[in-house]
Amino acid sequence: MNAVIELLQRHRSIRKFQPVPLTPEQIQAIVGSAQMASTSSNVQAYSLIAISDEATKRELARLAGNQAYVADSGLFIVFCADLHRIEEASKRHQDTFHTNTESFLVATIDAALAAQNAAVAAESLGLGICYIGAIRNNPEEVSQLLKLPQLVYPVFGMCIGTPDQEPSYRPRLPQAGILHWNAYEETTMQQGIDEYDRTIHQYYLERTQGQTVTTWSRGIADKYQKPVRAHVKTFLEARGFKLE
Amino acid sequence: MNAVIELLQRHRSIRKFQPVPLTPEQIQAIVGSAQMASTSSNVQAYSLIAISDEATKRELARLAGNQAYVADSGLFIVFCADLHRIEEASKRHQDTFHTNTESFLVATIDAALAAQNAAVAAESLGLGICYIGAIRNNPEEVSQLLKLPQLVYPVFGMCIGTPDQEPSYRPRLPQAGILHWNAYEETTMQQGIDEYDRTIHQYYLERTQGQTVTTWSRGIADKYQKPVRAHVKTFLEARGFKLE
Repeated sequence: MNAVIELLQRHRSIRKFQPVPLTPEQIQAIVGSAQMASTSSNVQAYSLIAISDEATKRELARLAGNQAYVADSGLFIVFCADLHRIEEASKRHQDTFHTNTESFLVATIDAALAAQNAAVAAESLGLGICYIGAIRNNPEEVSQLLKLPQLVYPVFGMCIGTPDQEPSYRPRLPQAGILHWNAYEETTMQQGIDEYDRTIHQYYLERTQGQTVTTWSRGIADKYQKPVRAHVKTFLEARGFKLE
Repeated sequence: MNAVIELLQRHRSIRKFQPVPLTPEQIQAIVGSAQMASTSSNVQAYSLIAISDEATKRELARLAGNQAYVADSGLFIVFCADLHRIEEASKRHQDTFHTNTESFLVATIDAALAAQNAAVAAESLGLGICYIGAIRNNPEEVSQLLKLPQLVYPVFGMCIGTPDQEPSYRPRLPQAGILHWNAYEETTMQQGIDEYDRTIHQYYLERTQGQTVTTWSRGIADKYQKPVRAHVKTFLEARGFKLE
């Protein structure tokens, strides 16, 4: 173990922030770190939209399911998958850019790797972060608000700021439940669910003084009983992404 | 700046490794760090397949376009998006799991965030890493080799090991070309391509003693002139992912 690994393993999402904006030096360090993440064949197929305008921040908070901490964070960044820049690069050479499921994947993964570097950089500065997947609740409205061109979509947002809470660490699946050796190990995976159900049961009992009685699989089953964000495919196609 | 941000910004991919396997402590620290990355609604929709078997490693190297460093790395990990575990969790409550583009995205992003934490943890231990997107060259063969169940797919691989080379740092797009304020800034983005084309032109001239004359946009245009990995959609659907 070293200080970096301790930092990585001390992560928990922060949803309450002190009203302190980030300094230009902090933003420079965070974005600079995001940019040095790996990128598929150096395509760098992502863009960051940083929100300093208070009205835009409040509108994004509303569009992301009324999550107040979006508006209250020191900086809110929308991480976008960006194939528009690729298309523009191709046009400069009179070449046609072909988009498909693979290039959609590349851009999404590039955005995610950059974002996680941003998260680690922010936490190393004593800041807290929270990913906001709910930016995909109303992705068309978000895209219009941020004037995203075709072939750019908001993958998720990230709140960054000075923590004003000290949340507990949520246990993860047992390592044996997610780490397989040489081939997928179904039995170990199933045992992982069993063990984790007991862990999460206990975790919520203790956190809620016996009020919340649930397990991990129960929560997951509830969440996916109905299709989640069924509009995403239609939205992506309207934005020029071809999932073919 | 601090030591973590310096580490993040010192990243470059390593493609030549000393024949030194990772220790169990290193693997524990890397995987433990991967697990503490953010995950959408705690679904943890990913699995890691670590490859210790030499024959499997060589076969993966072959399937990933004959990249020798896959076989030569100290540890090779295939990061998979895993909705199978979610489906199994749902089954325990007699619930139907609904998969669509959104849940495919969630699992892919979860895998990417975990992977980037693994990369940072490995580099903090003095190891080098290289993402292997070419695992998607032959995803069906990779899935069969690793006995992946339905609703699990290999997003990318990662070589980890003791570096046996000292590659240079590849410059990135200018920060103004990827960072927008409050709305997408088309002009700044276009200027970013111009500036980066000059940077990359100079970078390759110097690295190849004048042999390689190219720009970033030229390379990108060439890469996407034809559809890349056009089989990905068909593969994903055969594996049970519904991109709808």
